[in-house]
Parts: sequence; C-alpha cells; structure tokens
Amino acid sequence: MTASSEKDRVLIFDTTLRDGEQSPGATMTHTEKLEIAGLLDEMGVDIIEAGFPIASEGDFKAVSEIARNAQNAVICGLARASFTDIDRCWDAVRHARRPRIHTFIGTSPLHRAIPNLTMDEMADRIHETVSHARNLCDNVQWSPMDATRTEWDYLCRVVEIAIRAGATTINIPDTVGYTAPAESADLIRRLIAEVPGAGDVVFATHCHNDLGMATANALAAVAGGARQIECTINGLGERAGNTALEEVVMALKVRHDIMPWKTGVDASKIMNISRRVATVSGFPVQFNKAIVGKNAFAHESGIHQDGMLKNPENFEIMRPEDVGLTESNLVMGKHSGRAALRDKLRQLGFEVGDNHLKDLFVRYKELADRKKEVYDDDLVALVGATSEAENEHLQLVSLKVVCGTGGPAEAMLEMEVEGREASATEQGDGPVDASFKAVRAIYPNNARLQLYQVSAVTEGTDAQATVTVRLEEDGRIVTGTSADTDTVVASARAYIHALNRLIVRRAKTGPGEDRREINWKDVS
Amino acid sequence: MTASSEKDRVLIFDTTLRDGEQSPGATMTHTEKLEIAGLLDEMGVDIIEAGFPIASEGDFKAVSEIARNAQNAVICGLARASFTDIDRCWDAVRHARRPRIHTFIGTSPLHRAIPNLTMDEMADRIHETVSHARNLCDNVQWSPMDATRTEWDYLCRVVEIAIRAGATTINIPDTVGYTAPAESADLIRRLIAEVPGAGDVVFATHCHNDLGMATANALAAVAGGARQIECTINGLGERAGNTALEEVVMALKVRHDIMPWKTGVDASKIMNISRRVATVSGFPVQFNKAIVGKNAFAHESGIHQDGMLKNPENFEIMRPEDVGLTESNLVMGKHSGRAALRDKLRQLGFEVGDNHLKDLFVRYKELADRKKEVYDDDLVALVGATSEAENEHLQLVSLKVVCGTGGPAEAMLEMEVEGREASATEQGDGPVDASFKAVRAIYPNNARLQLYQVSAVTEGTDAQATVTVRLEEDGRIVTGTSADTDTVVASARAYIHALNRLIVRRAKTGPGEDRREINWKDVS
Repeated sequence: MTASSEKDRVLIFDTTLRDGEQSPGATMTHTEKLEIAGLLDEMGVDIIEAGFPIASEGDFKAVSEIARNAQNAVICGLARASFTDIDRCWDAVRHARRPRIHTFIGTSPLHRAIPNLTMDEMADRIHETVSHARNLCDNVQWSPMDATRTEWDYLCRVVEIAIRAGATTINIPDTVGYTAPAESADLIRRLIAEVPGAGDVVFATHCHNDLGMATANALAAVAGGARQIECTINGLGERAGNTALEEVVMALKVRHDIMPWKTGVDASKIMNISRRVATVSGFPVQFNKAIVGKNAFAHESGIHQDGMLKNPENFEIMRPEDVGLTESNLVMGKHSGRAALRDKLRQLGFEVGDNHLKDLFVRYKELADRKKEVYDDDLVALVGATSEAENEHLQLVSLKVVCGTGGPAEAMLEMEVEGREASATEQGDGPVDASFKAVRAIYPNNARLQLYQVSAVTEGTDAQATVTVRLEEDGRIVTGTSADTDTVVASARAYIHALNRLIVRRAKTGPGEDRREINWKDVS
Repeated sequence: MTASSEKDRVLIFDTTLRDGEQSPGATMTHTEKLEIAGLLDEMGVDIIEAGFPIASEGDFKAVSEIARNAQNAVICGLARASFTDIDRCWDAVRHARRPRIHTFIGTSPLHRAIPNLTMDEMADRIHETVSHARNLCDNVQWSPMDATRTEWDYLCRVVEIAIRAGATTINIPDTVGYTAPAESADLIRRLIAEVPGAGDVVFATHCHNDLGMATANALAAVAGGARQIECTINGLGERAGNTALEEVVMALKVRHDIMPWKTGVDASKIMNISRRVATVSGFPVQFNKAIVGKNAFAHESGIHQDGMLKNPENFEIMRPEDVGLTESNLVMGKHSGRAALRDKLRQLGFEVGDNHLKDLFVRYKELADRKKEVYDDDLVALVGATSEAENEHLQLVSLKVVCGTGGPAEAMLEMEVEGREASATEQGDGPVDASFKAVRAIYPNNARLQLYQVSAVTEGTDAQATVTVRLEEDGRIVTGTSADTDTVVASARAYIHALNRLIVRRAKTGPGEDRREINWKDVS
C-alpha cells in the first residue's frame, strides 16, 4: 500500500460481494461472485471485499477462489473480533497476491450492549484481535461499527488502540446512514488531527444511504482526509444500500475542479458491471438512478427530439460514452458460428467455458430464429440465464399454457427431477400461477414467492423478457432469473432456477453454514 | 407568505406534476394529475407546481382545475420569460386561493446563447417579465435556469433585478445536477449576503441528482439560508431526477439535532403517494431506494430473522410507521358490499365517483373470486388500472392465448373499437408478442414499444401483476398500466390503455399542443 503517501489518490474499496450481497434476496452463486470479482478487478477497483469467510462454507470458498484469481486488486475478507473469525478469514485471503483482513466490532452504546462488554473489555478485545490479524497479514483494516453513533472520546481511544495494534486502514462506518456531509468531513478531520498515529494509516469512509446522502457523505469524508471510499455497484446493500461506486467515481471525475482526487477506476466499464450486478442480484436499477439508470442520460430518453435541446451540453455534464453506454448494437446474424459468439462475449466482458459456450450457442440460435434482431443486451441476458448449468437438479423439458379472460389458466408441464422425467397439468389464476402450481405438483415445496418481476431486455414486442423470482423458505432467500421471448416460459424457468438454488442452499448443514444463523453471542 | 419570517420553517415546493411529469414516459393523464395534486395538498406540501400552462391545452386545464380544487397549498404554474407565457400561466393559476406565477430564463453562457440575447438584453427581459408577472399576481417566483453554471457577478445582477421587479421567491436551480453540498450552501449564503434586497425574499433550492447528491445539496442550501426546497415524489424527473421529497422531509425529521428546520409535511402520507406516483408515472422505485424502497426498512426485508439483530434500533433510524408503511392488511372478504369498498378506498386516500366505484366493484368481485386474499395493495392497483374509463376508444372484450416451449404462441383476441366489435388471431414470439400483434391486426398502429415491465402487487403466485407498457409514436410518449392475476391479460390491457392515451394525444393538434414541440425561439 503506497497510497497513503499519494495524497490525491482515493482508493476504491468495493463491497458489492460482502455488504451488497448481504442484502436480503441479493444472494449470488459462487460462479456469479467470481464473475463480478473479475469485472471489479478488471475495472481497476483497488480493494475487493470478497465476502465474510466464516459466514458459510460457500463464502469461504468464494473468497479463496477470488483471492487466487485476482490480478491487481487487494482481496479482503471480513472477520468479527474473534481469533476464530480472523484465522478463517486469513485462510481464505492468504491465496491472494495482496491479501487484507478486515476485522470489526460495534463500538456504539447500542452495539456494545450486544456482546455485553464494558468499554475496557472491548478495548482489550480490539487490541488482541487487531494484533492477531496483523501477525497473520501486513494489511489489516479495522472498523468501529456504528462509529457515527459512538461517543467521541471512546471512538478516539479505540481508533488509537487499533492503530497501535497494527491496523493499516481505519474505516469509519456510518452503519445506519445517519450522517450529513458536514459531520462526515468533520469526523474524519478530527480523528486525523487528534488520534496519535493517525497520519500513518489510511482512513476510509463507509456510508449507507438511508437518508439519501451516502454519496455526498463519502465525498465529504474524502475532503476531511479519508483516502478510501467503501462502496458497491448500483449502491446495492441492506435497506437503502451503500454508497454507489458509479456515483463517487463519476462525481470525482466531473467535479475534479473542486474535488481534486483521482481513482484508479476505468469508468467506461461502469454500465457493463452495473447491468451484471442488477441481473445476478435481482435488484433492478430504477430509470432515474444517477449514472446507471435507463434515463440518466438525455440521449437515452428520447429527449433529443425536444426543440428545447439544441445542444446536449446544456443538460449533460457527462457523456454516455464516459460510463460505457453506447447505442445497443446489432450483434451478429443468425448464421454466425460459435467462435464469433465467443469473440462477441469476450468483447462484452464475459469469459465462458466450453460447456457454457455450448449451452449459450443453442439458446442463441433459438433466439435468432425467433427474434428479428439480436442485440448486445440480448446476449448479456442469455449469459445471465445460462450461467448455472452446474446446479440443475430440476430442468424444464416442455411447457404449454392456455390462458386468457375466459376462465382459469391451464399449464401442462414436463420436468426432469434429478434426471427423471415427470409431468403435471394444473389450473391457476393466470399463466404464471398455473405454471408454478405444475412445478409444485412435480416438485412439492413450501417456498414463498416474495417477488416476481419481468422486464423487457430490449425494445419491441418480440424482445426477450428477463424474469426474476425471489423465494423464501425458513429464512433462506434465493433469487432465480431467466430470459426468453415467451414470458411464461421465462417465468417457469426463473422459478425452477430459484428452486435449484434453494436445493443447493438446503444441502448445506451445520452451524455457521447459513449466514442468517450467525449469532453475536459466538464472539462475545 | 409568512414563511420568510419563520426562520426555522422550510417550505416544501413539489414539482412532481411539472419537472417530474416532464420526464420522458412519465406523462400523466388529467385525472391522475388531479389525484396526485389532491394527495400533495392533503399531505401538507406548501406549494404545488401543477404544470406549464402554455405547454399544451391539457397542461392548462390541469393547472386550472388543480388551482380550483386546492385547499391549502399555493398553486404555481411555470412560464418562460415572455408575456404570452405569463398571461397564460396567470389564467390557469388565478383560480387558486393562493396562486403563484413561476417564471424563468436560462442565465448561464450556454443558455444565453439559445435565445441569442446579450447580458444586458437578458437583464431587461427579466425586469419586464417579472414586473409583468407581479402586476398580475402578488406571489411571483423567478429562477435563473442553470444558475450553478452562471457567472457570479451576472447571477447577483439578475437576482437583484428580479427582486426589484417584485419577485417574492428566488429559486436557484442546479439544472444539470452539477453542484456539491459545500458549494450549494455557499452559493445561497453569498447571494443572501451580497444581493441588495435579498433579505426580503425567500430563497429556494432546486437540485438534480445527476451525481447522486440532490438531497445533500438541497439540505446544504437550507443551511446556507434557503427556506424552500423544490422536490418531487420518488425523485421523479428528467435524467437522474430531482431531489426526492421523502428524503429531505425525513432527513430534516431524523436529524433535527443538526438541521433545526421544520416542514409542514405529514410524513405518514409518504408511502401512499410514493406508490401512486410510481404507478401513474410507470417509474418503479428500486428496492434499495432511500425511505420508499421495498427494502428501505429492515422489517420489510426479512432481516429480523438474523441473529445479529436483537434490537431494531441498532440498524433503524426511522420506524416504518413514520412514513406510513404498515404491514399489508387483508382488506375485506369477498362478500363485502359497495359501501364497504368505498369506505376502504377512502381510508387508502382515494375518493372515487359513482361510475368509477361501479367499475371498481366489478373488478374487485372478479379478483376476490380468483385470489384467496385481497390486500390493500391490490385495491390500490385496481384503482390505478380502472381510473380512465373516460377515454376508452379501444376496449378488450376477450383474450385467449396458447403458449409454451413447443412453438410460436397464438392469441385470439376480441376488442371493441369505438363501440364496434372486431376479432383477430395472431401468432407471435411468446404470449405478449402474439397478443400485441392481435391488437395491431384490429387497430393498426406504428407505435414503438419502448418499455415493458411486470411486477407482482403482493406476494404469492396468485398475486395480481401490474404491467406497464410505454409506447412512442412521432416523439409522443405514453405509458399504459393494468393489473390482473393473469399477466398476459394484464399485458394486453396495458397495451390497449397506452393506445387509448395515444389516441387522446394525437387528437390534439396545432402548435404548442405537445410539450415536445415547444421551441425556445418562440420566446427569444
């Protein structure tokens, strides 16, 4: 880490795979995590928080593999204030060229009450755990969770202890999204001024968007002296989410005049990763989302037809190309071969294995037969819809649905369950209900449908639709997606996709296997 | 306006119906505008910008009727810097108990170039037009559009001219969403300190969210001395949208300790109006949107199951009830009568006429027959789907669709066109494409499908789906919505709804009838 000496450089710490993925329903598969980590590394993110290794076997494996694959980024894992957590974290991140351990404890009165520690006991624990982490790894980040609601004197005291114990980055989290910009700047400024040793570490800011000010708070913290911004793609995260990476990166570019700090992020990769994160998390981006919303740029929204706008500069402070937004391209003809498809996918940022390419090519050909024009976005949707061939316990064989205004809808469905074929015919309220009932007739389950949504991938009535289905069973939440020109078929596939994920989640047993089962008592 | 003397009161100026509705695709009908205005008035918004009266006959009528209906709010109309615009605006708002004329001109170098005025010529025009407005109305707001990119000396000069000419409110728009909080506060502070007469008027802040900082910028402007925040519900608006009303209102409540200013808004009405604006605009709110997103509160997101969360206060700075978010209620049994339905709708904030109630009751009975549990949200969706009986040039009579994996989908459709029945059978790529083709076979049109999306109204596979369809024809953009337990039927209805709106839009002829045809040259 040379960055603390580069005073005009702000490190971008992405936590899409940890704080973002922790968002209920946004759970990603192993393959998706690796893909997103690859895109983050490629776009120049400085530090990737890849997961919470002790949370589950799956988290551990994902962090380990991301650590092995990373080319440039520091790979960081999260650990609570316990030796067991920290050891497990180190076992996962040690495979990286540049590993980091991030350990934290809640320091505000409300959070101190949970492990029931006195101020002194907590201070001792911070000293012990940070020292332990530093003995394992020379790059250690420490966070006082709920820092913005921690007593000032105590905050200074514990930050100093963490620095003395060897922390190289001190992260100040606004865990509840409570801060305003002036406070955010002031807090960092005072910590740097008053805590002995503060000049030797990097201060980081970690903001939540509960009051809609995460971006402004993060940038204010930088003005106050922070040199690491913690953020997620699309602002993904619990409740109102985290600071959005795309917003801080673009604000620092567009307003370099008043915020003279640089990041290492290649902004032209923003749109691609934004779309991928929206797809794999099942959290769509609203039209009027800053930077990455469909309407964020005037040229996307048809407003060029407006006589008022003679000059795009009048209303645009960024060019769409700056964030990688280009007109949707016609990809390739229906007679293109597999090699051409692989080349095109590579251009779009996807490296796919041979088996995956084979699947994709079949789906692509089907699509090209049915749809006049195949666009880049169609391919991106196909990649999303076929990336999980490894877990197909359940597979759709065929579906026929009759529906309309005349009465209940009827679905005739054939499905493979662990390789064995079965069929069912069910009636329901509409084609989706009937199809889902037919799936349940073949594969009974009590998972509750929390969310169902459909959006068209491109324009035109023959567009593919992407369907997202979120299921909940005993506190486990899974999201399935699929894309097809037939929305009913896509719905059935998305439901089956979600069930396949649920089967994987259920198969994990034992304590600590499911993140939702972590208990604070474990570390008190 | 007594507010300029109440130093701790911030006026909330809502422009959902003007700047929000100007968002491509967010066009609202007359009925919808009246409904939203009613909800804004009821929730305690101080000033409602109801539209741009000269933009179209429809805008004029909407502003006039909103002005007549308003109980408490000041009703404001927008006018460019021309006598014709201002006269037209006054003709619409004069019906209000408390009318306001809002006139503006672009003062930055880029915007001065459009009407091709010198600095002196523009200064003269500002003097003449503001004086003219003040002769008509004692409540006049003036805005230098693109103020944040206007030369400082010139900005001071034109603000002084507008004040001398009789403006009572000076609004400082950050038209391109360019500002950062410290600048935003500083700009207002300096204007108040340096412009003669500034102490006699209210300063307003109008921010856009292009860099994700609209909320922080608006609140910073208040710290700098502004006492009016211009905002929209859900942050609706062009590009990345405007400051979100719900964010500034809740930030001022939650952080009253550091932002000691009050608004007159009843925050418990926020969720209801947010849902209505999302429905009528066709702009859904993302899950992780601050305050009004589905995941904004932990209790909504299933996270209570998490062992980490012993105490909601640990992670919540607001209670869901504060913004009117309550558990979805089972509404009423299927045997409830029409009076019970009317009562329930009234509780939900809807006043419906007898004919509308009759339609709604039929749809409600159909729904209650098909769906086990009818929730508040289902009724809200029904109201949205049936509020436009007045414009039904085209009506769906019946639809039957066969679709699935086996081949093209087929739709058999019967429709009434201006009272005459017609039918068609068409094949397509999926049930939606086939249904839309059948509609086009009966009612040929070249409108392009810009957007298609579906979301479930409540949980469970038998939930109603709300379908949104956005069409574009010769620069006119219309949005149709419908709700049904059958997504295919809802899709056909939403498409027909959009076509009905397009027919209304087409019927308007002559210059200035369509907002998109306004030319800046008209006012130069």
